[in-house]
Amino acid sequence: MSKISPLAPERFPVMPPLAGVRLSTAAAGIRYKGRTDVLLVELGPGTTVAGVLTKSKTASAPVGWCRTALQGGVARALVVNSGNANAFTGRRGEDAVSQTAAAAVALMNCPATSIFTASTGVIGQPLPVEILTGALAKLKKNLDASAWEAAAGAIMTTDTFPKGATRTAALDGATVTINGIAKGSGMIAPDMATMLSFVFTDAAIPAKVLQELLRPAADQSFNAITIDSDTSTSDTLLLFATGQGPAHDPVTDAADPRLDGFRAELTDLLMDLAHQVVRDGEGATKFVTVTVTGAENARAAKVIALSIANSPLVKTAIAGEDANWGRIVMAVGKAGEAADRDRLAIVIGGTLIAERGEAVEGYDETPVAAHMKGENIVIEVDVGVGNGQFTVWTCDLTHGYIDINADYRS
Amino acid sequence: MSKISPLAPERFPVMPPLAGVRLSTAAAGIRYKGRTDVLLVELGPGTTVAGVLTKSKTASAPVGWCRTALQGGVARALVVNSGNANAFTGRRGEDAVSQTAAAAVALMNCPATSIFTASTGVIGQPLPVEILTGALAKLKKNLDASAWEAAAGAIMTTDTFPKGATRTAALDGATVTINGIAKGSGMIAPDMATMLSFVFTDAAIPAKVLQELLRPAADQSFNAITIDSDTSTSDTLLLFATGQGPAHDPVTDAADPRLDGFRAELTDLLMDLAHQVVRDGEGATKFVTVTVTGAENARAAKVIALSIANSPLVKTAIAGEDANWGRIVMAVGKAGEAADRDRLAIVIGGTLIAERGEAVEGYDETPVAAHMKGENIVIEVDVGVGNGQFTVWTCDLTHGYIDINADYRS
Repeated sequence: MSKISPLAPERFPVMPPLAGVRLSTAAAGIRYKGRTDVLLVELGPGTTVAGVLTKSKTASAPVGWCRTALQGGVARALVVNSGNANAFTGRRGEDAVSQTAAAAVALMNCPATSIFTASTGVIGQPLPVEILTGALAKLKKNLDASAWEAAAGAIMTTDTFPKGATRTAALDGATVTINGIAKGSGMIAPDMATMLSFVFTDAAIPAKVLQELLRPAADQSFNAITIDSDTSTSDTLLLFATGQGPAHDPVTDAADPRLDGFRAELTDLLMDLAHQVVRDGEGATKFVTVTVTGAENARAAKVIALSIANSPLVKTAIAGEDANWGRIVMAVGKAGEAADRDRLAIVIGGTLIAERGEAVEGYDETPVAAHMKGENIVIEVDVGVGNGQFTVWTCDLTHGYIDINADYRS
Repeated sequence: MSKISPLAPERFPVMPPLAGVRLSTAAAGIRYKGRTDVLLVELGPGTTVAGVLTKSKTASAPVGWCRTALQGGVARALVVNSGNANAFTGRRGEDAVSQTAAAAVALMNCPATSIFTASTGVIGQPLPVEILTGALAKLKKNLDASAWEAAAGAIMTTDTFPKGATRTAALDGATVTINGIAKGSGMIAPDMATMLSFVFTDAAIPAKVLQELLRPAADQSFNAITIDSDTSTSDTLLLFATGQGPAHDPVTDAADPRLDGFRAELTDLLMDLAHQVVRDGEGATKFVTVTVTGAENARAAKVIALSIANSPLVKTAIAGEDANWGRIVMAVGKAGEAADRDRLAIVIGGTLIAERGEAVEGYDETPVAAHMKGENIVIEVDVGVGNGQFTVWTCDLTHGYIDINADYRS
């Protein structure tokens, strides 16, 4: 295993049990030896579910399964394995998901459409499904309401640390809890979700409302990060609501102002998890925030921000602690969105470097050079044509990325 | 200077003099010490010109100048410097180009619109224009019809070898010559041209016809390569026709069948130069050809091919000599163009690896592993939805790229 990312949080958060959720992990040996690689989550009866899935044209078999199951809006169990993505595995891949679901149905005594599955790891190799189904009975025996860190660990691939976050929100007078875990380190440029992230709440929220809360929150968080511009075949974000927490009156509309607190905390939690994914970017040594303002609209601002965040030349300059803002100019230019070269302004680490299309008079690189040596790099660009703005997060591109990916088969 | 790329051609081609073209280089010290960094090309009276320029929204001052000058369609001189791109230099940048042109006008005794300029190197730093203009008189004294290799050398930045190519074509019974030089090594994802390439012919072809010949040839060559997905602010491809070669009857229409041979040789020469740019890709150790077939149309095929060619995960796998075709599946999926996952076929080095959406029965990796150890990697993907096809060329992503770009300020 790789060394833990230098950008990792100091510790895994203390995550409280959440009524209606129990977790269990095991080392089944699907691909890795000597580490956990399967996760079963049991969800109480009546749990609702929402999800955001990859738009990849070569999405994995479990993604296809979840897309169908989400239409039912109810969940009773989640089965996840790491080490094998069960993607591009043809008919056999779909059979493997059906078999997994059937085994879970037998165990949980529920309809197949209440079973959710996700797989992450190598693409194109048949999933040894019997190992996964064979592990389920023992997993069920060991279900535990407090196994959050173990759960976050079992879904890792090249991740160097487990990712979790917890929040509480006031909802109609009750205090509800939201717990989430995520994995992801490379092949990260979510177009609509992340690699894998599973979020749970004890609030009682109908599936339709849950979906309306989840989509915009995902757009601001997981859909605003990139590690290497490569989008996974397996991106899956699921949000489960058990309804077993402190009682509150029903909510039936996502626009209900009683949901404002929940929406804010959910967004904050997803942002926390998304940032943790960036902090575990393959080979990352810097956490980079890119904000674009002055674009035609928010969509254009995002395109420009991602053009900067995905540029290998910008990312290698950051790795080299070089305030090479000329490469930022290049990345703005290639994005194809409206930008006024002669009104462009660039700020790094709070220092104005360029405005009105050229370096500021007497630009002193000293404070910027000091900023580049830090772990948190902040880039702000105003493209001078409108009011659109957007922020994305990324990491630098280092020798570590090459080490990991010229070797690991993902 | 870096070591010469392992993919470099054995030697610079023997390029014949070309009537109406004389070249001269010098070490002016614009940025680099102890190497040539300025180029003057004198073009005979009556020379026509066509060009393809970057679509970057932050294009350099010389690109803006050439865009205007191209409207006149006549050329008398070309002035190029390396080491400083004169991009994002505001009003001062435009003044620098005007001063350069004025100095050349005084020397060549021609209108300013017959002067073409190009600059390549670091972005955002004022061009020390007096060094450039101060070098012109001496450059003019040393003009030489055979200085092709020196010319190709003077325009290099991180390039490890000079790039040139020559062809002859039959045109209306006469044998005309085409000579071209190019530079480029990083920040290569031409959207419409290359970094810098200058092509010369002694044929007599009106500017309008020249332009119609150049655009499609550029689309098949320079616009079909990528090293790192980053598009330069300076991409400039100029084609000059002196009309001083063997006499031929006038041509006035690009569709004239007498131009078929010229068109084919021009395209072949541009392809040669474009491939040399890829072979000098920063840190490159493999030359990679990616052909996509079965797409909705050629445009869609190109998008998918570039998604594969630009994927950091595909490129690092190639660097690691790993036939990781799962990452090719990923890159097809993220491209967003129509692709039928369950009809997808992948061939590497002539070996069928996957078809109908999964690995072929009994797939033996041995021949593919042997192919991956070679210098020329050939990837063919059929996406199973139509008849569109396109080929692009790229290189691998190695530690060498990080070494060069975490350090060099471009």
